[in-house]
Amino acid sequence: MALTNRAFRLAARPVGQPKPSDWTFAEEPVPELADGQILVEVRYLSLDPAMRGWMNDVPSYIRPVGIGEVMRAGGAGRVAATRHPGFAIGDAVVGMFGVQAWAVSDGRGVTRVDEGLAPLPVYLGTLGMTGLTAYFGLLDIGRPEPGQTVVVSGAAGAVGMVAGQIARIKGCRVVGIAGGPDKCAWLTGELGFDAAIDYRAGSVKAALRERCPDGVHVYFDNVGGDILDAVLARLARGARVVICGAISQYNAEQVKGPSNYLSLLVNRASMQGMVVFDYADRYPEAIREMAGWMADGSLRSREHVVRGLETFPERLGMLFRGENIGKLVLEV
Amino acid sequence: MALTNRAFRLAARPVGQPKPSDWTFAEEPVPELADGQILVEVRYLSLDPAMRGWMNDVPSYIRPVGIGEVMRAGGAGRVAATRHPGFAIGDAVVGMFGVQAWAVSDGRGVTRVDEGLAPLPVYLGTLGMTGLTAYFGLLDIGRPEPGQTVVVSGAAGAVGMVAGQIARIKGCRVVGIAGGPDKCAWLTGELGFDAAIDYRAGSVKAALRERCPDGVHVYFDNVGGDILDAVLARLARGARVVICGAISQYNAEQVKGPSNYLSLLVNRASMQGMVVFDYADRYPEAIREMAGWMADGSLRSREHVVRGLETFPERLGMLFRGENIGKLVLEV
Repeated sequence: MALTNRAFRLAARPVGQPKPSDWTFAEEPVPELADGQILVEVRYLSLDPAMRGWMNDVPSYIRPVGIGEVMRAGGAGRVAATRHPGFAIGDAVVGMFGVQAWAVSDGRGVTRVDEGLAPLPVYLGTLGMTGLTAYFGLLDIGRPEPGQTVVVSGAAGAVGMVAGQIARIKGCRVVGIAGGPDKCAWLTGELGFDAAIDYRAGSVKAALRERCPDGVHVYFDNVGGDILDAVLARLARGARVVICGAISQYNAEQVKGPSNYLSLLVNRASMQGMVVFDYADRYPEAIREMAGWMADGSLRSREHVVRGLETFPERLGMLFRGENIGKLVLEV
Repeated sequence: MALTNRAFRLAARPVGQPKPSDWTFAEEPVPELADGQILVEVRYLSLDPAMRGWMNDVPSYIRPVGIGEVMRAGGAGRVAATRHPGFAIGDAVVGMFGVQAWAVSDGRGVTRVDEGLAPLPVYLGTLGMTGLTAYFGLLDIGRPEPGQTVVVSGAAGAVGMVAGQIARIKGCRVVGIAGGPDKCAWLTGELGFDAAIDYRAGSVKAALRERCPDGVHVYFDNVGGDILDAVLARLARGARVVICGAISQYNAEQVKGPSNYLSLLVNRASMQGMVVFDYADRYPEAIREMAGWMADGSLRSREHVVRGLETFPERLGMLFRGENIGKLVLEV
């Protein structure tokens, strides 16, 4: 196998926003397969805000990426060579392949997917980790009831778009918070959100007062910071706040805590964190249900596909500048 | 009835720490009783951190005290005159009598208590609102399991001392956080806590690392601020944080939010607020159980009784300076 791999390896731990020198882009030979391994030609990479957290050397829900290691990333591709009985050449697969063109894997955490049901990038988003995060976070932690008001931040992102649509499917009033008129129009138009709040256009607090006159029963938070505080100030009695992420804080050297957290006391509300990996044994049921919703048109997926493995560092930054609509996917 | 009342009325909304000019101390005639009313000679007043919140004109779990109104406070006393069929002269009663020597009441929210079972001040504390807050906050929201580590802040205060002891009764490892060696010695001595951390003596974070090697399964928070952040950094997987109060923040003009709140995500933990009034229909069962624990010696109560109605403003400040050990009660 005279194949040449191209890979981004972590060169330094970023302080604040990652910069080009935090990476090395290496061309290197693809190793020979050992028994039990497969070689995957990576076609698409999932770009996720959580990746910023994996670059920090702090205890978290997953081991940090080591200096010199290929940057961790979800990927989708096809099996190009196999010495593993469970995979055949040509199989479409998703897994944690890393930011590289070719991945050697022992098959652990690698799932075969059906390209007839949905194109590969969808398996990195709505039928992948971000869709599953939305599904379990909203339904298991948020537990919305029909008629309740559900607010989603980062609503035009990969997780938020799915969380909001599932809330709508479950009969809730859904209010999305996103940056810019295009995202907001998409939320209330194609995705059927009841309202959208453009956090760049004015006071989120005032908009929430107007859009959520009975308070917020479920808040699905992807952003943290000032928006979390604004929603905390509008909680309904007994509200559930799902802490899924905090994209506004991932590059901050000091996280801004929610100064309105005592609203939890006043409103007998709860704030709970979740990590999708805990639901691994229920992924199949969730994917089946979401695929059904996609098939009947009630759940729409949008992938924001950008091209060129070598553009990875720049593309990752798009997430933190709010430049993606839908799931950001890098085509290798 | 030529009785003269003495009462503290709210004169101004405090900014930061309340000052003497925020009150008027009035001598005024006790009104004649109407049909259905009782007159209570107030003997003891409950001094509680929550009273600071009631002085702010913001929406909360209870209506703010109006300017010119008698300051709200729990009290215990005896019925001195009655035109109410449910009460006889001499009945020992507790209720929201306000910061005054004589209270006229229509009997709503007034409960007769048995002085044979416990002295009056105990009904303002361990067998009253603060004990009930500890009971329901710990058992219903914290849900500790035997062998788990329970951390209580404000542990030598009225709520904390009961929460910690109930955790011990339920078979947990209990670590109390309090200010000063006297409080800490009392917690590990008389109250049987497994460990105590003096937050004035050094790094709470380091002490928690040492005292809670397996992390914190339940955190009962009465203080907020830096101590909340320190405990968040030590949460065990699936931990429950009970938000009961935030005494460190009640006089702050800007509340410090917990910057370590993303520990909820990493540890799949929850943070939930509670207000004891929601459990009113279960007060009798809780009081019965706690009275049983007091009778068999497993639950100890301590009242810090100070004297003189006219000293109320100064005594209230003791709570925020951490000068009380146990339940602070003002003897009228």
